[in-house]
Amino acid sequence: MKPSLPQGTRDFDAATIRKREYILDTIKKQFVLHGFEPLETPAFEKLETLMGKYGEEGDKLIFKILNNGLGQSAKNTAEIARANFENILAGKNEPNITERALKYDLTIPFARYVAMNFGKLSMPLKRFQIQNVWRADRPQKGRYREFTQCDADIVGSASLINEIELANIYKNVFDALDVPVEICINNRKVLTALAEICGKENAMTNLAIAIDKLDKIGLEKVLEELRNRDFDTNSVDIIAEYLASQKLGSNEEKLETVSNILIQNPLGQDGILELKEVLAACPYLQIDFTLARGLDYYTGSIFEVKPTDVKLGSIGGGGRYDDLTGLFGVKDVPGVGISFGVDRIYDVLEESNRFPEKMSVEKTVLILNFGVQYTSDLLEIAAKLRIENIATTIFPDAKKIDKQFKYANAKGFDYAILFGEEEKEKQNVKLKNLETGEQANVPLKEAIAIIQKA
Amino acid sequence: MKPSLPQGTRDFDAATIRKREYILDTIKKQFVLHGFEPLETPAFEKLETLMGKYGEEGDKLIFKILNNGLGQSAKNTAEIARANFENILAGKNEPNITERALKYDLTIPFARYVAMNFGKLSMPLKRFQIQNVWRADRPQKGRYREFTQCDADIVGSASLINEIELANIYKNVFDALDVPVEICINNRKVLTALAEICGKENAMTNLAIAIDKLDKIGLEKVLEELRNRDFDTNSVDIIAEYLASQKLGSNEEKLETVSNILIQNPLGQDGILELKEVLAACPYLQIDFTLARGLDYYTGSIFEVKPTDVKLGSIGGGGRYDDLTGLFGVKDVPGVGISFGVDRIYDVLEESNRFPEKMSVEKTVLILNFGVQYTSDLLEIAAKLRIENIATTIFPDAKKIDKQFKYANAKGFDYAILFGEEEKEKQNVKLKNLETGEQANVPLKEAIAIIQKA
Repeated sequence: MKPSLPQGTRDFDAATIRKREYILDTIKKQFVLHGFEPLETPAFEKLETLMGKYGEEGDKLIFKILNNGLGQSAKNTAEIARANFENILAGKNEPNITERALKYDLTIPFARYVAMNFGKLSMPLKRFQIQNVWRADRPQKGRYREFTQCDADIVGSASLINEIELANIYKNVFDALDVPVEICINNRKVLTALAEICGKENAMTNLAIAIDKLDKIGLEKVLEELRNRDFDTNSVDIIAEYLASQKLGSNEEKLETVSNILIQNPLGQDGILELKEVLAACPYLQIDFTLARGLDYYTGSIFEVKPTDVKLGSIGGGGRYDDLTGLFGVKDVPGVGISFGVDRIYDVLEESNRFPEKMSVEKTVLILNFGVQYTSDLLEIAAKLRIENIATTIFPDAKKIDKQFKYANAKGFDYAILFGEEEKEKQNVKLKNLETGEQANVPLKEAIAIIQKA
Repeated sequence: MKPSLPQGTRDFDAATIRKREYILDTIKKQFVLHGFEPLETPAFEKLETLMGKYGEEGDKLIFKILNNGLGQSAKNTAEIARANFENILAGKNEPNITERALKYDLTIPFARYVAMNFGKLSMPLKRFQIQNVWRADRPQKGRYREFTQCDADIVGSASLINEIELANIYKNVFDALDVPVEICINNRKVLTALAEICGKENAMTNLAIAIDKLDKIGLEKVLEELRNRDFDTNSVDIIAEYLASQKLGSNEEKLETVSNILIQNPLGQDGILELKEVLAACPYLQIDFTLARGLDYYTGSIFEVKPTDVKLGSIGGGGRYDDLTGLFGVKDVPGVGISFGVDRIYDVLEESNRFPEKMSVEKTVLILNFGVQYTSDLLEIAAKLRIENIATTIFPDAKKIDKQFKYANAKGFDYAILFGEEEKEKQNVKLKNLETGEQANVPLKEAIAIIQKA
């Protein structure tokens, strides 16, 4: 039997892990510098914690875990389970068959954590979380069933300083990664105001859904869809004018245009003011009034980051939500957060050739093996190199020398150390730089100095 | 609804994560210094990859994932699923309902990886892997349903240098963690020889199972169990003599005694020789001929690490296996590996108060907030601190000063920076050392210097 991986999952080898860590370390450094602390939550949550939080489509993509009692217990477990299995098939929760599910994102588990520990936590709480999540999505290029999310959130504070700090994290991270990006901002209050002007129940949801398609289907089709969703002519004209603001060049022009459209609406003016305040501190941000972001729970600022020289959609996003923990019975805890799309950032760096040439500056050494009579010498040499923090491998078998060199090259070692009869006699080692081919017969101390200087 | 965690799982807060990272970084450092490279495999594998690899008991503890098609598709999916559900209940694989499962350890996924990529990998392959695994075990103190495994393996080499290097890793890690341990070694060849002398089919398995209980039930009960398992009097006498070797003080005495018992058995003598060779390089190892370790796949050296001043069972173990990838169709790839029980090591350090007092030497700063009129100043101060790699939080809301100080103390910040009217006028900041209470009104540059010197 030839083994294989489940669809949509990946093994990460050493080279890939180093590249991923380069990205994650860059992000993590900014999180820490900005005062965020780490949190980790379990891979699976109770089913009831997750279900109903991601909309109907999201719920279907949650990986459910079979109860571990199943398959080993008494006949009546079997009976109960079979009787209830139809509920599962209909997409309903069924604690007799499944009561756990893999986490679908990091936000809901974080909200669960905050609600669960609310009395004990000092507010505001600034946490970052870098963990895998799982979605039963159809796998395709750049979309996996297991992938890494990388979030920072501040809860317990409504101050716009939080938005500013999060925007600065985006800026600093992509500067550090040398990835040219557009960091876009909008404010849900502005969108809600627009929906209010259109004067319809549920206008906000329909509006957000339609606007989200702007990039894909274009303005005319979006307006058509709005007409089909019973927006009147006047409303559609206003929305068209609103969306056209995106064609204006500067943030100032956009703000003026949209402010005029919403001139009568206090919530809209509030949103405009918030945008102005964040922009004053973060002039690199670009207003995009057509940015909607699907998630229902956003209530204020929303962010999205797109690479400008690779076509790859969004590589980051987030926003303000004012009642996330309300889902778990703890009301009125405002929050704002951002997320980095680590797998996509990886693809951007790969496609634009922006990973640093060498991920690690540490030099690595392979000690060649000329037979068991040298084992204790090789172990001693290795121990001395390792005390100097030089990563060292002893080739464990006394294979032919060219095989050992071939291995050294395949693995990308920086140096080989040879130690045989001659070296033992002279109390030397032979150090070979595998890049340049240079060789030196020197005492081990000197070899270490050469490696460290390189 | 008050939310809660699934049984046997945990949230890790910042303090816990720092302690865990202290352990993991210590281990990882040794792995890297010894030439091991990282590997990561997915959280879930195909069910067929995992089933049948961990014995009957192990199979029952594997968390199976419901197929994601279920619950959303046509009626006939429901019919198929219901018809087949009985197979699941009987513990059989059923691809119509579940074809994926959470990984149960890191060894089988690693074997799957090696078999899958065999032609492309340079041998020997030295990999380490630090990831979570999941078991549907009954949760109890120190036993979780999600926990971290931390493994290093070398495959593609039969040399005992590998055993020596792995033993050295154990030694170096527990020295670095300052945890007093016994690192025990035995060799499966010796146990197999003993079973051969007893001359029974399957003697090895019964012997290993009985010996594994020695610590719990004592010598007499073990011998009784062997008699019940049809070992004859002569065999039980030999085994009693063999097990009594553990009471001898030195490795040399133990080796001599057991060597004499197995004097006629070539495999046994081979095992004795291997032990002697490893011991010659690793004099800190302690022979324990009663060490069996349950897993069927071990064929040579076996290791176990126990803390000596905390009663907590094994905190590490491993051994040589000579055909692990044979499970996946790639024959004759010898390997040897060790594993660290991270969660238990955590408990040992906690119980014996051995975590370093401060996990991080980095100083942290909270900038207090006296109102929106200072926002841009505070942002500027924060930016300057962060450029100097000082982790900095701006208190986002202009709350009462004592509330902000209370927050600083609860969170354990090292310094507070105050910036109000007076400081703005004088172009100073007020720096307060939160441990000593010392204050200084100084230019920001000087404040940074003070923090950096601390």
